[in-house]
Amino acid sequence: MNPALNFCSVCAHAIALRVPPGDNRPRACCDHCGAIHYINPKLVVGTVTTWNDQVLLCRRAIEPRRNYWTLPAGFLEAGEGTGAGALRETDEEAGARIALGPLFTMFDVLHVDQVHLFYRAQLLDLAFAPGEESLEVRLFDEADVPWDELAFRTVSLTLRHFFEDRSRGTFELHSGVIEWSSRTAAIAAAVTAL
Amino acid sequence: MNPALNFCSVCAHAIALRVPPGDNRPRACCDHCGAIHYINPKLVVGTVTTWNDQVLLCRRAIEPRRNYWTLPAGFLEAGEGTGAGALRETDEEAGARIALGPLFTMFDVLHVDQVHLFYRAQLLDLAFAPGEESLEVRLFDEADVPWDELAFRTVSLTLRHFFEDRSRGTFELHSGVIEWSSRTAAIAAAVTAL
Repeated sequence: MNPALNFCSVCAHAIALRVPPGDNRPRACCDHCGAIHYINPKLVVGTVTTWNDQVLLCRRAIEPRRNYWTLPAGFLEAGEGTGAGALRETDEEAGARIALGPLFTMFDVLHVDQVHLFYRAQLLDLAFAPGEESLEVRLFDEADVPWDELAFRTVSLTLRHFFEDRSRGTFELHSGVIEWSSRTAAIAAAVTAL
Repeated sequence: MNPALNFCSVCAHAIALRVPPGDNRPRACCDHCGAIHYINPKLVVGTVTTWNDQVLLCRRAIEPRRNYWTLPAGFLEAGEGTGAGALRETDEEAGARIALGPLFTMFDVLHVDQVHLFYRAQLLDLAFAPGEESLEVRLFDEADVPWDELAFRTVSLTLRHFFEDRSRGTFELHSGVIEWSSRTAAIAAAVTAL
């Protein structure tokens, strides 16, 4: 969630919501210094990291979805490329050194204003270990993936595409749009209730 | 450019730059209300729109790079999917109705904190017309593309990949990282001098 836009970050004047000249939708405008504060979707970058036939998952140490399993992923930082960000997140969350492969999935996650990108990657060694945001990091065979304990829909979709493509013997880019659903709502309610 | 982060947008208190607990880099923190203001790269979405063998370009009516030719593209809006954003920008800048195809290029543009995505698309009719941000919209044969008057490197790279793939008879996803260069610096100097 972005912090509220009540005041201008440039001059601290109160924000007015209105359509700027030449624009076609309301923006957070400062009538004192003229700054316009846009809100844009954020990128989340991560990896499907493998070792032989196994895939690397992290059990989350933080909310949302603490205790659930995820692919290593996180917000892209300023000044960082998407591949470099995916590599950094895999190191930070799983303590894993990887060889980064091609982009594999891209999902628009509309209800949280995010775009999720997952790259394929290969582990370079087995000296991985949970980072601060993970309780546990493990390699899973396809048969052992905890489908009912995955943290996010983009994670389960990426894993399903991965195993399907692997069984076909050819990988391609998969993309899609994730919209609000009863399942999303149930997860949000559970998170709020914590 | 993002507006300066001098004051907290939630409570108007002065911002302190420091590393929050559990984080590993300095963030814009508010010591009054506890808000943390992250800065993340923004997504720019657009299309390589074609009609038979021709590709649709717009001559820019606005800075940066006014008068230069570009593929229709712009910032992804909150609540919008990347494909939907590419379609909207093509309508807003070129007045063009299109059938959206697959993602074609993705570039990390590090010096401006942007990620550029271009989808392939086909024009549905010839009733296109410049929007507010365009001076002119035209279909170009490959031989007539104004390579020296293209607005951005991601536009020229996307067009080069498009014509190469088309001549090979097969399209694939292309990605890359755009870093600061002497050419970027020259463009920036020219823009600043305007």
